[in-house]
Amino acid sequence: MVSFETLDREALSAEVDKLRDQYSQLRARQLDLNLTRGKPAPEQLDLSAELLALPGADYRDGNGLDCRNYGGLDGLPELRAIFGELLKVPTSQLLAGNNSSLEMMHDTIVYQLLHGNVDSARPWSAEPGVKFLCPSPGYDRHFAICEHFGIEMLPVPMRPDGPDMDVVTELVNDPQVKGIWCVPIYSNPTGVTFSEETVRALATMPTGAHDFRIYWDNAYVVHPLTDAEAPVHDILGMAADAGHPNRPLVFASTSKITFAGSGVGFLGSSSENIDWYKKNLGFSSIGPDKLNQLRHLRFFKDAAGVRAHMAKHREILAPKFNAVLDILDSRLSDAKVATWTHPDGGYFINLDVVEGTAKRVVQLAKEAGISLTAAGASFPYGKDPANCNIRLAPSFPALEEIRVAMDGVATCVLLAAAEHFDEQQG
Amino acid sequence: MVSFETLDREALSAEVDKLRDQYSQLRARQLDLNLTRGKPAPEQLDLSAELLALPGADYRDGNGLDCRNYGGLDGLPELRAIFGELLKVPTSQLLAGNNSSLEMMHDTIVYQLLHGNVDSARPWSAEPGVKFLCPSPGYDRHFAICEHFGIEMLPVPMRPDGPDMDVVTELVNDPQVKGIWCVPIYSNPTGVTFSEETVRALATMPTGAHDFRIYWDNAYVVHPLTDAEAPVHDILGMAADAGHPNRPLVFASTSKITFAGSGVGFLGSSSENIDWYKKNLGFSSIGPDKLNQLRHLRFFKDAAGVRAHMAKHREILAPKFNAVLDILDSRLSDAKVATWTHPDGGYFINLDVVEGTAKRVVQLAKEAGISLTAAGASFPYGKDPANCNIRLAPSFPALEEIRVAMDGVATCVLLAAAEHFDEQQG
Repeated sequence: MVSFETLDREALSAEVDKLRDQYSQLRARQLDLNLTRGKPAPEQLDLSAELLALPGADYRDGNGLDCRNYGGLDGLPELRAIFGELLKVPTSQLLAGNNSSLEMMHDTIVYQLLHGNVDSARPWSAEPGVKFLCPSPGYDRHFAICEHFGIEMLPVPMRPDGPDMDVVTELVNDPQVKGIWCVPIYSNPTGVTFSEETVRALATMPTGAHDFRIYWDNAYVVHPLTDAEAPVHDILGMAADAGHPNRPLVFASTSKITFAGSGVGFLGSSSENIDWYKKNLGFSSIGPDKLNQLRHLRFFKDAAGVRAHMAKHREILAPKFNAVLDILDSRLSDAKVATWTHPDGGYFINLDVVEGTAKRVVQLAKEAGISLTAAGASFPYGKDPANCNIRLAPSFPALEEIRVAMDGVATCVLLAAAEHFDEQQG
Repeated sequence: MVSFETLDREALSAEVDKLRDQYSQLRARQLDLNLTRGKPAPEQLDLSAELLALPGADYRDGNGLDCRNYGGLDGLPELRAIFGELLKVPTSQLLAGNNSSLEMMHDTIVYQLLHGNVDSARPWSAEPGVKFLCPSPGYDRHFAICEHFGIEMLPVPMRPDGPDMDVVTELVNDPQVKGIWCVPIYSNPTGVTFSEETVRALATMPTGAHDFRIYWDNAYVVHPLTDAEAPVHDILGMAADAGHPNRPLVFASTSKITFAGSGVGFLGSSSENIDWYKKNLGFSSIGPDKLNQLRHLRFFKDAAGVRAHMAKHREILAPKFNAVLDILDSRLSDAKVATWTHPDGGYFINLDVVEGTAKRVVQLAKEAGISLTAAGASFPYGKDPANCNIRLAPSFPALEEIRVAMDGVATCVLLAAAEHFDEQQG
């Protein structure tokens, strides 16, 4: 097979016919496969089986605290110390919460809408407009929060070392731009890890809004797929040194470390922001589930325990990612109808198909019984201007299912591309 | 001792001198006791020790669901069925959440401020003003939410059968009155249980606001202190029959059933409200901690299991309440300087001292090393107009500590009263 773009009309027609035949055979298999879900596979969850019977009879943390009762908005200090080490956040500036860091992100937005943050002149809802920068493609749930609350989203192109900082530094001059969404390590869905230079630029750049916030969602901080762990940059320290101590809000969770539904979320920031968050949180909570935190503390023991645990995840995940990459390479390379990422970590492979064909690919796959994330889902308002981006989530299905599904996806990508070029020539 | 009000000046002065002497002896003991905290005692938490090693190896619910992974905003159906039976809410209209029903109350207020509810013409924040009815004395955390969000609180006198419905039905004509806080069974802090007539009146009364909501915090629904369990009235059914299906929002939790910090919260309402809540919740959560729900399901087994468990709590709590009542009776009855409740359930005894002396009593107690809830805490804005109300929380301290603390409190009540009448005569 050669590059579709170099084929003459006759050769393209033959290719379309051949691929339609392949696709018919694919549909005839009546598959029911799903590559949409960025969630751990059962065998990954099995790695944390010990948690199911923890903490056991001893319900006290190392400080003698009875973890069963009410109280303590900060969460357990020993668990915060472990994740503080991994996230480069001082324990005193890191809170451990319930099972969702997304909830913490959502709630800080709500607090700012209704009351503003410590640097705000007024509640964000009293501003003439609030805008967020959205490096794209990015995480759909981040963007959904903005859309839900009427926060205007400004897309920023994603580069191999993070968001395009020329665009960012230009856009943040607008005082209505109050924040930016970032997944700094093994980003969702591109796998991009921000360079130290990018992190420093974000931490130190001038902004029009005095109450600008970086939503630093370090969801995949300990989720490498290779031997080389991405370095964690001290964005809080960088921002503080630059006179913007309250700018970064650091989030993380154990959702993709232990049990996706029963993990522990974390929020790290300046002491002033942490006090602000707790003051607001105190109206809705008398403290997080400390027993679940104790469970995690007993299970991990220390930061090295977390890393050792993540190595086991990698043993399960890496072959799945490799299977996807192998099939993309063997089926799509020659035709030159797609590019894709080779992530060093995280949960996704980002597939860019021929411009204008992503929706068609997803539709073809769906009709063949293969569920893919909706085309455009990784962009603000669900709109991918080039209609080329597809997010692949290889974690949940079994290895053999992934192979079958990806072979089918490749057929759909090829068919959509061949049809596309055929139409262009027709 | 006779009623202080009947004493002449000389007798009163003698009484003041005697009580000052008693109080000096009390202070000399340098106590450090605390009657402020409405939280379970360690021996109550011990009743749920089995939970500490649950769910164990089997992480699936009765429907075969893997409770470890993401998903399911409703919570586990089997656990919802148990609490649906106890709360008189159909399982399909009851959600099980994380560890705080207060968070669910707070969040519904936030949703309404930012978007309104299903019956709202606009977000509550876009209304010229929002007011809530606050039967008083009531729960300080309810009132704190209102104050935090600028919702004006209108106090309503509390009667032995619930809020004064003459006042309520008058005030709800105002379309700015959007809600009422209710703890319908063994209310905080009065112990009042709403009569069926009161429940029906609340469910059926005309209101000026079409989007009026009853915050029905059934925190103590299975927390009797006597053999006779208070009946649970079907407020959702009554409201639906009257054409107000979306009016009641029913809340409950296991915080004072199992582990205070690691329980399960519940929200019950009309199907339309439940859908509305889930739609909003979906922006912040990918589902509650289902393993904690499974833990509770395995522990309780059924509604009878919950009731049997609560009988054990009662065995611990009832003697503590009796100790408080015995000391109040023996020390304060003759002097006629206080009245107090004899609750059939819940977590509090409500003590009304001589008008104008509550703050003085709390201050005297504090200086004697006995912490009492701040005077006025149970009223909107922390202001008890009569300065007579003190909330006593006998659950947490050991029985002997309660006896010592209450004897000290009685001395403070008597001294403050004697001083008060002495000053009046002077």
